[in-house]
Amino acid sequence: MIKNYLLTPGPTPIPPRVLETMARPIIHHRTPEFRKIIQEVEEDLKYVYQTKNEVLIFASSGTGAMEGSVVNMFSPGDKALVVRGGKFGERFGDICKAYRIEFISLDVEWGKAVDPKRIEEALKKDNKIKAVYTTLCETSTGVSTDIEAIGKIVKNYEAALVVDAISGLAAIPIKTDEWGVDVVISGSQKGLMIPPGLAFVSVSPKAWALIEKSTLPKYYFDFKAYRKALTKTDTPFTPAVNLMIALRESLKIIKEEGLEAIFAGHKKMAFAVRNAVKAMGLELFAPDAYSDGVTAVKVPQGVDGEKLVKTMRDKYGVGIAGGQDEMKGKMFRIATMGYITPSDLVVCMATLETVLSEMGYKFQLGSGVKALEETLR
Amino acid sequence: MIKNYLLTPGPTPIPPRVLETMARPIIHHRTPEFRKIIQEVEEDLKYVYQTKNEVLIFASSGTGAMEGSVVNMFSPGDKALVVRGGKFGERFGDICKAYRIEFISLDVEWGKAVDPKRIEEALKKDNKIKAVYTTLCETSTGVSTDIEAIGKIVKNYEAALVVDAISGLAAIPIKTDEWGVDVVISGSQKGLMIPPGLAFVSVSPKAWALIEKSTLPKYYFDFKAYRKALTKTDTPFTPAVNLMIALRESLKIIKEEGLEAIFAGHKKMAFAVRNAVKAMGLELFAPDAYSDGVTAVKVPQGVDGEKLVKTMRDKYGVGIAGGQDEMKGKMFRIATMGYITPSDLVVCMATLETVLSEMGYKFQLGSGVKALEETLR
Repeated sequence: MIKNYLLTPGPTPIPPRVLETMARPIIHHRTPEFRKIIQEVEEDLKYVYQTKNEVLIFASSGTGAMEGSVVNMFSPGDKALVVRGGKFGERFGDICKAYRIEFISLDVEWGKAVDPKRIEEALKKDNKIKAVYTTLCETSTGVSTDIEAIGKIVKNYEAALVVDAISGLAAIPIKTDEWGVDVVISGSQKGLMIPPGLAFVSVSPKAWALIEKSTLPKYYFDFKAYRKALTKTDTPFTPAVNLMIALRESLKIIKEEGLEAIFAGHKKMAFAVRNAVKAMGLELFAPDAYSDGVTAVKVPQGVDGEKLVKTMRDKYGVGIAGGQDEMKGKMFRIATMGYITPSDLVVCMATLETVLSEMGYKFQLGSGVKALEETLR
Repeated sequence: MIKNYLLTPGPTPIPPRVLETMARPIIHHRTPEFRKIIQEVEEDLKYVYQTKNEVLIFASSGTGAMEGSVVNMFSPGDKALVVRGGKFGERFGDICKAYRIEFISLDVEWGKAVDPKRIEEALKKDNKIKAVYTTLCETSTGVSTDIEAIGKIVKNYEAALVVDAISGLAAIPIKTDEWGVDVVISGSQKGLMIPPGLAFVSVSPKAWALIEKSTLPKYYFDFKAYRKALTKTDTPFTPAVNLMIALRESLKIIKEEGLEAIFAGHKKMAFAVRNAVKAMGLELFAPDAYSDGVTAVKVPQGVDGEKLVKTMRDKYGVGIAGGQDEMKGKMFRIATMGYITPSDLVVCMATLETVLSEMGYKFQLGSGVKALEETLR
């Protein structure tokens, strides 16, 4: 008999109140009943986004909205500036490549955050840059980027600032309007606590001006079609009805808890995780730029990282994430966002201790959980 | 106290067995447990598609897969042949336009089916046509197209045959391999009986050959990325996990019932609906080319069609669809697919009679239900 705990940085666990809504009989989407849901969701998304901008909703995974944030901004000959410090930063570059948009790559060592000054230098040098692409929380490395500082720079240029906040929205602070972020991309299965299948973008007036001029081809992710439909509280194509209903419920929970309380909780939990793994003699992957949504930890020498993750999952029911791409087998990641609680962390840390000890790693058993408790109490 | 009945051609009602799976705790998608789900779903989709071709699965609504069937097939300079006899046929043309692919339009009067000979003539005339786009069941008009006859023609040309079966798959027969259909597009919320949010395409070797040569830009809907992931029982981007789990369950139901039995049931129900509305003195919108998945009926003179649909829904809880675009207010549509049963039809027809009579339409009360019962028994 195994009880399952999910501490992956997406999908994250779904609150029972939200799960329950998914099992309700379906309703039609072109009805006053569903239009009310669109309206409520739109309003509450603006609260979470901390914005007055429209938030467009897509039936797709986050990558679809990332593609949207490229195809809607550019025309042939325009350039992009792409911060690449992990798998998801790299994806923006891949999308530009697919659409033959030249991009200047600001490559950042995995585990480090970009120095905002590098963005300013690049913008000064090249006035063909129409948009800057960066990542709030790079899920693949657990690195958090200083979006506020970048916002202060980019607002002085013609270029728009596009932030992938798929792993960050409702998990760690992003003040869309105050920080001057023109396009904020998000997904449903992280801080928003519902299953994957919805993606979101907020669009500022500065970004809309670029979008008006864009001639790259698009259809399903055409932002203007979504904006137009939204004026009639509608969607241009059939929405993912029951995910929208689940979202309405999870947004209610977020509003009840309050964004600030949620961020403070995540911050405390992530601090506890960092202290716990350090107490076990483990090393953080991003000690200088950690995110409070997901903590990346180096697999200690002599331990098979893929086996560690598999054993925790298959033998003990505790789901954490391994490393991706170049970090495969060398890293594990523990999320502290959405419906992940201190009790989940206790189980996770005890299991991590058990499995590491089974795998021959030398440390004081109990040290991780002790540090976790000390930090959390 | 109102009990709701949904008889719209998408979303269709969801069987309780399927609904229940949606409320289960979420699992991670990069696990053996989820890979097994992908494998089962893939196998059962092939059964429903009647194909040996790969069936690619997208987290999007059907339109996303329609876009995919354009951007993956063409290179600049290629031409498309598009059969346009309703809202969804027209959408193929709109997508071609968005991607600057020249298309020859075979315009068909709404309510009629295309004469396959016209497709042969067009293909003979122009060897730049790389793909023919048509619709199995045009949801907006209730028209069914003779895909078998079109398949026999197109197979003799270089062009691939692409069929929008979003409203048709698992509702009315489409024999993908036997009829030589190269790309069959579908969606989750019609015959497949789960909520909207998943889209599917099957791709034949002939279509793959075209896809290999295509240079139009694409990323999220890049068929090759999905094929590559499928070889590892994986998806290139985060899948809509709980919709996939729901799909596994609904495909099980479809296999238990058997495709032939399902088609026979829909055929009988649609025949009964046609007889019922005719008995009430109403006129079919597509008397010569009706589909057994959805029946379109003309709103009789003197009756406000939009009010009819609204009253049935808001006062009596019975959801049917109105007309779209040029047919707004002039048509209503009753679906007979997925988890819609004869009992639903009885309630629907009795309510239709009640509301038509309230609205002043003159006919013999009870005549529709009587004809329905006579046909169904």
